[in-house]
Amino acid sequence: MVLYVIGLGLGDETDITVRGLNAIKTCDKVFLENYTSILGIDHKLLTEYYGREVILADRECVESGAEVIYEQAKDKNIAFLVVGDPFCATTHTDLILRAQEIGARVEVIHNASVMGAAGACGLQLYHYGQTVSIPFFTEGWRPDSFYDKVAFNRKGGLHTLCLLDIKVKEPDFEAMARGRTVYLPPRFMTVNEALEQLLEIEDRRQENVYSRDTMCVGMARLGQPTQCIVAGTMQELLTVDFGGPLHCLAIAGDVHILEQEMLDHFSVANWNARQAAIQN
Amino acid sequence: MVLYVIGLGLGDETDITVRGLNAIKTCDKVFLENYTSILGIDHKLLTEYYGREVILADRECVESGAEVIYEQAKDKNIAFLVVGDPFCATTHTDLILRAQEIGARVEVIHNASVMGAAGACGLQLYHYGQTVSIPFFTEGWRPDSFYDKVAFNRKGGLHTLCLLDIKVKEPDFEAMARGRTVYLPPRFMTVNEALEQLLEIEDRRQENVYSRDTMCVGMARLGQPTQCIVAGTMQELLTVDFGGPLHCLAIAGDVHILEQEMLDHFSVANWNARQAAIQN
Repeated sequence: MVLYVIGLGLGDETDITVRGLNAIKTCDKVFLENYTSILGIDHKLLTEYYGREVILADRECVESGAEVIYEQAKDKNIAFLVVGDPFCATTHTDLILRAQEIGARVEVIHNASVMGAAGACGLQLYHYGQTVSIPFFTEGWRPDSFYDKVAFNRKGGLHTLCLLDIKVKEPDFEAMARGRTVYLPPRFMTVNEALEQLLEIEDRRQENVYSRDTMCVGMARLGQPTQCIVAGTMQELLTVDFGGPLHCLAIAGDVHILEQEMLDHFSVANWNARQAAIQN
Repeated sequence: MVLYVIGLGLGDETDITVRGLNAIKTCDKVFLENYTSILGIDHKLLTEYYGREVILADRECVESGAEVIYEQAKDKNIAFLVVGDPFCATTHTDLILRAQEIGARVEVIHNASVMGAAGACGLQLYHYGQTVSIPFFTEGWRPDSFYDKVAFNRKGGLHTLCLLDIKVKEPDFEAMARGRTVYLPPRFMTVNEALEQLLEIEDRRQENVYSRDTMCVGMARLGQPTQCIVAGTMQELLTVDFGGPLHCLAIAGDVHILEQEMLDHFSVANWNARQAAIQN
């Protein structure tokens, strides 16, 4: 039988493809990978929309206990749903290879991912270098490997897409110490937090990779009706309120004329004018 | 009213999202951009599937006469369909800005693009540098700007996605000279042609950016049921038959362990074995 690995796209339940929806309707079990990203909607709503129970699969389940997912594909159709495109955050290589080893057919149904949708900000996808991840800093852990990658991209005049950390189902160690299994509420890094961390590393390393004057584009909820895109310098974007998750950030490299026209369109001044118009 | 700019994804008519399909059903006119890519299906089939006439929009129409598209969005819902994701090949910046200028609302509905789907080959999207385009060489025009970009990526250990040229609605100058407007049949660059051109440039420039031993992955018809992915050296892939369009090619940079497992899975030897099994 078939293990369908299906991308859900970026927005709500209707962002699945018709092909993906048709596939789910042939499945006995439906799992939703819920640790690398989140969708704009509740999984109970998905259950209703599909007419099938949607089982949440956390990181532990997918990475160490994935046989509960793929082993059933031996004699049933199973759907494994991933927000965005199945290959964008993780390749789910292990799941796919293991399923094929036990004789299941694997069919991947692609969808929009943040890496494609980021093109909406007007910086052409062709002019991006490697994508970087910005992790939440902690008291004692402030890694800066993204700095070298941004430096490399900027040396080539290339834009950098920064994917921002999310923390889902993080254990509450204080409660754990008292013998209870408790998870912290989910956290999603904002554009502002990412910029603060980026600037902290520039201040520490001082290699002039970027500065408070570097042009960036902050993006939130790409592909959703409340999508928010604002272009400005790092300094300008530090105080813009992008609203709810997910956020991501593009650091501009060399900006071409057509790209500039879109950045102007998304400028902080235009954004403020639109916000003022809504409030009046 | 609304100008919907809708991605169709990579495969057939069912690769549109449910949201996209719902949007089309509210539209008075439906245009299909048909010059940057092709879909695995005929546009007449789309007309039937949508219950609406699908008007083909060639490059000339979109780039110099786009007002026939966006001006109608003033008082009607109009759909502009793009294969893949709307922002992947071109950003359609002009169309979007002009439509907004005359007061139309623009809604973009994202979908899978080759840039995301290329993750299916097992090389992680995080480890790609900038994407390059390989144009068809002609007798007197053999540009090599992609060579510098591949060089830059490989210096950083990064993979390179190569998008391969397509020629749709190219004028037949011989017939034109005889006073008739005739177009040549469409041409789509194969993985083999791309490799030949890449090797020609390496032989000319000799900067050891890559060689016949460089690991690559050839991909054809990504996201379609007949999808074909084969990994091997440039030399090995030169003679693999990838079948019908569209093709694309990844040139591997530094390959991580998990990536290697997928490349092994897609090896030429495995491919030959599978082909032999089908024929027996």
